[in-house]
Amino acid sequence: MKLTINREQLLYGLTTVARAINDKHPIPVLRNVKLEVNERGLSVIGSNNELIIEHVVPFKIDSQVVIRNSQEGVTLVSSRLLTDIVRKLEGRDVTIEVIDSTLVQVDDGRSNFRLNSINPEDYPDVDLEKIGESFVITGGDFANLVDQTAFAASTREVRPTLTAVNLTARDNELVGIATDSFRMAKKVVKLQESAEFKVNVPAKILTEIARLVQDEQEVEIHVTDKKALFYFNATTVSSRLISGEYPSIENIIPDHYDYFLEANADELLRAMDRVSLLTTNERESVVKLTMSEEGGVQLSTRSLQTGSAIESLNTCQFTGERLEISFNSNFVSAAVRACKSQDVIIGFVGEMKPFSVRNVADNTHIQIVTPVRTY
Amino acid sequence: MKLTINREQLLYGLTTVARAINDKHPIPVLRNVKLEVNERGLSVIGSNNELIIEHVVPFKIDSQVVIRNSQEGVTLVSSRLLTDIVRKLEGRDVTIEVIDSTLVQVDDGRSNFRLNSINPEDYPDVDLEKIGESFVITGGDFANLVDQTAFAASTREVRPTLTAVNLTARDNELVGIATDSFRMAKKVVKLQESAEFKVNVPAKILTEIARLVQDEQEVEIHVTDKKALFYFNATTVSSRLISGEYPSIENIIPDHYDYFLEANADELLRAMDRVSLLTTNERESVVKLTMSEEGGVQLSTRSLQTGSAIESLNTCQFTGERLEISFNSNFVSAAVRACKSQDVIIGFVGEMKPFSVRNVADNTHIQIVTPVRTY
Repeated sequence: MKLTINREQLLYGLTTVARAINDKHPIPVLRNVKLEVNERGLSVIGSNNELIIEHVVPFKIDSQVVIRNSQEGVTLVSSRLLTDIVRKLEGRDVTIEVIDSTLVQVDDGRSNFRLNSINPEDYPDVDLEKIGESFVITGGDFANLVDQTAFAASTREVRPTLTAVNLTARDNELVGIATDSFRMAKKVVKLQESAEFKVNVPAKILTEIARLVQDEQEVEIHVTDKKALFYFNATTVSSRLISGEYPSIENIIPDHYDYFLEANADELLRAMDRVSLLTTNERESVVKLTMSEEGGVQLSTRSLQTGSAIESLNTCQFTGERLEISFNSNFVSAAVRACKSQDVIIGFVGEMKPFSVRNVADNTHIQIVTPVRTY
Repeated sequence: MKLTINREQLLYGLTTVARAINDKHPIPVLRNVKLEVNERGLSVIGSNNELIIEHVVPFKIDSQVVIRNSQEGVTLVSSRLLTDIVRKLEGRDVTIEVIDSTLVQVDDGRSNFRLNSINPEDYPDVDLEKIGESFVITGGDFANLVDQTAFAASTREVRPTLTAVNLTARDNELVGIATDSFRMAKKVVKLQESAEFKVNVPAKILTEIARLVQDEQEVEIHVTDKKALFYFNATTVSSRLISGEYPSIENIIPDHYDYFLEANADELLRAMDRVSLLTTNERESVVKLTMSEEGGVQLSTRSLQTGSAIESLNTCQFTGERLEISFNSNFVSAAVRACKSQDVIIGFVGEMKPFSVRNVADNTHIQIVTPVRTY
């Protein structure tokens, strides 16, 4: 294997697939990036067994030569090392050449590296064939669905399905749902074509994919019962799925509300940020809203160790009878941020009932948070 | 104690003294900041027993009122909490009031915090009286002396004196020396007045002080056999000293050189940065320079685990017979950076002899590095 390749294009490929590579992976071969020169150009592959990314650098982009003096072949080399080296080289082009089965040379004329390599046959088979139900979506729409839901998935492996985002396609809609059983996020996106499936994609992987596709005009998604595949530009991504029935939790969305709080998102976030300074448990920062039409809206907290705080939320509008409700401010902050809007509306049913956080102008998206018992 | 104070000025005082405060300090009272309203204004004090910082916010700056409605008194409150709260408040002014011996109120009209406080009598006595040998220096000159030496001090507590920068004043010169026994840095600064002392100031503390004084026109330094005191603007800093004789290591500076390498600092740093990617020991990255007048200058490294690298240093000029020398590139990189110049000159005596790194245009500063035995 041998090629001379534009350094920027190579670096783009290496950093793209590096999202799937873990330098401390228990299976040493997966700490490597797989480079293969074939009829498509240079195929760069990274995998951690759950997530596989392939990026193909073509011989030419428009009429610009990207790869020259190439000979077909394949090699494996440390992803971290090669990416760092290519990032820090100064030449416009880099020549990569397999010297023998244990050595790969990387040279830009000024710097010459000879990196230890291992047998490419040790690398697991990678199958990125287009199969299963498929549809096309813009990268922006898909990234948005992920941004507005994935953070609400659980990070605890006790119930594996809850570490996923549940993606359901029916008719011309794609619905994303995530929950850690204390809160839930749901987002609906319209599709241009019809598809039908119901799968659980690991939230962590989906977040990586969202970063990759967010600026793409078109992402082609294929879904089987084993994996989800994403094709865009010169990149292909494959994610494993999490098996098991996703709980039907959409019924926790209240069908009516007795109290409404309209809030400026920024004012509410800043106030929660300040009072949360007093909480000593980083994962659960319990704060209390005290709301009435006459008395206005106050946010407060109290801790035996540090003290107490009370904030007046002057621009908030409350409708309903007097209500006190306590919640984990981390959850409400994340929900308010996910609305991506200047104003949010929070609907309550009662002191101990789940409440919703929404962007008034967007009925495709809803966040549900469960209150905590007041101190 | 009570006062209403300009929030920016209070924040400046809190962040200044926070450099001396460790939120995990084994002595809980030292996790607090001491606030005292007295005839000078608001005295803000932080200490970790080794380093003490006091900043005084005056009642007025020029004709601008900074503090109003004040009542004398003293309190202790968590430095981390108070600094975070004052940073995140939005009001122009903040009112701080001791409610009772266990509670301090912080209020900006919108937000109201009541922080647990402890008895101010538990705080150790702070004595910042001006005593001992003294001289005046610009903050820039002092910070420069620290920047060019302190990094070479040892971080291992086995030999405590080596964790210090040795400061010696004699006649009209201040000399700073630091060494970890593998390398040494020395810087001489001219003084406007005469002073005489020889003290060891902990390098870590000195680096904090350098950050504080770097933009000051005038720093008044007092030295006793117990502590060094720094007075500038509205801030006073006291550092403990490390007792014990500092080793006389200036004699490792070679009195002649047989080989000279003139290098562009940036080219040399980038090349060392790249080849060091292959080293697997972060603390000791061994690289080799191969130099001859005919063959030019090459930097190389070799590792069983990762591979080998060789760089041509095209703009370097070497004078002398052929020489190969190996060293820890971390040490040489730090030495080259400390020269703060576009070009550096490295003087060698032989393969296993300490060599010097200097800025050609500055004879007040020298770095010495000991080679390592070649692989």
